[in-house]
Amino acid sequence: MNAQSAYAELVRRTREAAVVLSCAELLGWDELTYMPPGGIENRGNQMAFLAGLHHERSTDPRIGELLEELEHSPLIADRESPAAVNVRELRRTYSRQARLPRPLVEELARVTSVAQQEWETAKEDDSFSRAQPWLERIVSLKRDEADCLGHQGVAYDALLDEYEPGMTSGELSRLFDALRSDLMPLLQRIVGSGRRPHAAILRRDFPIDRQHVFAETLASTLGFDFHRGRLDTTSHPFFSTVGPGDCRITTRYRHNQFSEAFFATLHEVGHALYEQGLDPEHYGTPMGESSSLGIHESQSRLWENNVGRSRAFWEHFLPQAQQVFHEALHGVTLDEFYHAVNHVEPSLNRVRADQVTYDLHVIVRFEIEQALISGDLPVADIPAVWNEKYQHYLGITPASDGEGCLQDSHWAAGMFGYFSGYTLGNVFAAQLFAAATRELGDL
Amino acid sequence: MNAQSAYAELVRRTREAAVVLSCAELLGWDELTYMPPGGIENRGNQMAFLAGLHHERSTDPRIGELLEELEHSPLIADRESPAAVNVRELRRTYSRQARLPRPLVEELARVTSVAQQEWETAKEDDSFSRAQPWLERIVSLKRDEADCLGHQGVAYDALLDEYEPGMTSGELSRLFDALRSDLMPLLQRIVGSGRRPHAAILRRDFPIDRQHVFAETLASTLGFDFHRGRLDTTSHPFFSTVGPGDCRITTRYRHNQFSEAFFATLHEVGHALYEQGLDPEHYGTPMGESSSLGIHESQSRLWENNVGRSRAFWEHFLPQAQQVFHEALHGVTLDEFYHAVNHVEPSLNRVRADQVTYDLHVIVRFEIEQALISGDLPVADIPAVWNEKYQHYLGITPASDGEGCLQDSHWAAGMFGYFSGYTLGNVFAAQLFAAATRELGDL
Repeated sequence: MNAQSAYAELVRRTREAAVVLSCAELLGWDELTYMPPGGIENRGNQMAFLAGLHHERSTDPRIGELLEELEHSPLIADRESPAAVNVRELRRTYSRQARLPRPLVEELARVTSVAQQEWETAKEDDSFSRAQPWLERIVSLKRDEADCLGHQGVAYDALLDEYEPGMTSGELSRLFDALRSDLMPLLQRIVGSGRRPHAAILRRDFPIDRQHVFAETLASTLGFDFHRGRLDTTSHPFFSTVGPGDCRITTRYRHNQFSEAFFATLHEVGHALYEQGLDPEHYGTPMGESSSLGIHESQSRLWENNVGRSRAFWEHFLPQAQQVFHEALHGVTLDEFYHAVNHVEPSLNRVRADQVTYDLHVIVRFEIEQALISGDLPVADIPAVWNEKYQHYLGITPASDGEGCLQDSHWAAGMFGYFSGYTLGNVFAAQLFAAATRELGDL
Repeated sequence: MNAQSAYAELVRRTREAAVVLSCAELLGWDELTYMPPGGIENRGNQMAFLAGLHHERSTDPRIGELLEELEHSPLIADRESPAAVNVRELRRTYSRQARLPRPLVEELARVTSVAQQEWETAKEDDSFSRAQPWLERIVSLKRDEADCLGHQGVAYDALLDEYEPGMTSGELSRLFDALRSDLMPLLQRIVGSGRRPHAAILRRDFPIDRQHVFAETLASTLGFDFHRGRLDTTSHPFFSTVGPGDCRITTRYRHNQFSEAFFATLHEVGHALYEQGLDPEHYGTPMGESSSLGIHESQSRLWENNVGRSRAFWEHFLPQAQQVFHEALHGVTLDEFYHAVNHVEPSLNRVRADQVTYDLHVIVRFEIEQALISGDLPVADIPAVWNEKYQHYLGITPASDGEGCLQDSHWAAGMFGYFSGYTLGNVFAAQLFAAATRELGDL
């Protein structure tokens, strides 16, 4: 067999495994958007089945043989060619996948599918104890996963690697130390200055049906292609790529909150523009996928903050917003609005946090995650430790677990190692925006 | 291996194949409800993959071995026991499936997935020529399917058997002859009588948002469980069971039409009550599934007509309808309304047809289907033959293909042999309702 036909077979097999994942992606999207509550047990079975099937296909020993052959072929001589990139990345995922036993993969899919619904209810009921047994099960499974994957003594690093190839908790700790030592004094200076923008204008009466129209207008204006995507409403905003030509985003609306839906939409549009811009020719292979979570978040955070909280952006959008929300925004000046959307103040919610405090929210989660996976922190102690850390980093304490440790659904989805991707995204976005300004001039 | 463990393995394998189908069911539902247009090519690939996988699992020679062993075991001595029913029905589907080559199964899934979108557009554009190449491809594939399945000279019978086990076109022709010879004179007497109800009251101003609330109220009142189901809007109403605890129905709304959404909802609720009433313990095996299409349609048609067009039904629902549509239904009497919803008049649309003309719509499709599969009728001639038959049976001719031969999406979905199930449903419903009246008294 020559290298060309080995590569063709590798791509064919990879694409078939991608179809399995794309079915699971739709089932996951449906679970969070339209599935009736009674469907959850069956959904868990479906997710477990597809996860097991994907594992079977993507760990077929034949893939190992093909990779072996290709790694010694001239086909990958040019390290930047699509073939070389695909072979390198497929080796990475093949090695990871092959270390995981299929029953573990299936169980994780089943448990996280059901746990996300339970977490939702726990959050609504403000009841950590309802979420606790699910989280204990998931932490235990993720520790098993890390042990199967193998690591240099820090199990958590094995999980990080899924989202940010090669990243370690040591390197992230250095990044967070640097950010913290600059951000905390900056926050104190801002809070201590006593100067506060007129942020209450963002908490006026913004009818939800109008917010919905405005969110769609925003998404279209920025280039989100509704022919190849959707915008729905969920309790936690997310994006999901079902396949080429089918990228879906969600947002959430609150009646007396302009920023909630607007910036969540902008964030998810950032993800979607990246996904909708991937080369469909390479769909189903690494060349047609995002390169890391940090890079993905750099796109969402760039649109949300570097663009969406700039004065130039609101020069364009404030007049439009005033046409739609003519009562709430009557007489509001550009400067007032610009300052309001950049209001800095310690708060309890990560998604709604300003740019100065955002990474402090992330570090709380990063520290707790490490302790959960290392075994230093029992799940039952999360609420107490969460509240302590919020007091330490942000000077405030949640009144309930619903607005505290239950606010994000990531852990219920088994996404340990994900949160730091937001901070990497912030840093990458700042670098990308600085480079763009340098090369292109005033943006 | 003893019979008990053979049966356990058979059930395990059958349930696993059912999970594959349930994934495909959700993908099919999504295609007709929320999928963005750009997702269609990928959806076709997903459907082909799942169809192929289901075929592989459900035709595994091991299933044949297990059936063989069980068919000679005392486990099925009681012919009405769940085990005996499952073994009998699984033999039937195994024999059918095993005759079909996997590439044909995959191709049918791919083509019908894309064709349904094309059909939708063709219908909107009133352009049969746009649908024609897709339908030609599907007719050709269905003829291949019938030939693979085998038959006694009538290929169409092999397709019928999927929906109504054991049914033949000869038997159906006798049924249709009997119905026709009674229905056509009855129709002429009604039309000739010159007496017409005040049907215009159903074409007043019925705001769609209120119709939506009323449809949900109706469904709940009849026992549709929204915890285990949904009601959405599509261009063609349908039901879809994703799994136990997840049965979804759809309807469609027209502003100046009360009957459209109301009776479509009632029809689909009938299907859903049957599905939601199936025993979850037997989910994934024949014992937990409907017994035939005709029986399924007997439930939808019974609720739609025998119940939903009765005077007693409207004694309850008219006052409720008047509260919601107080302007449109102000002063309308029970008799006026009862006569209006039972208005008989030849019309072009099957779904909206009254009980006297409904089966004449079905016979048009039944005759055309047979001719398409036998090869007597080229696809290109459908519009002309359709219009001729409507003139013959109903005395009217569609002004366009959109309101004529493109009105139903069944053929684009590859459902040849389905339409007669509606007439069987009408007949079974009449029998069931008569038996219930006999046993229970005035209903």
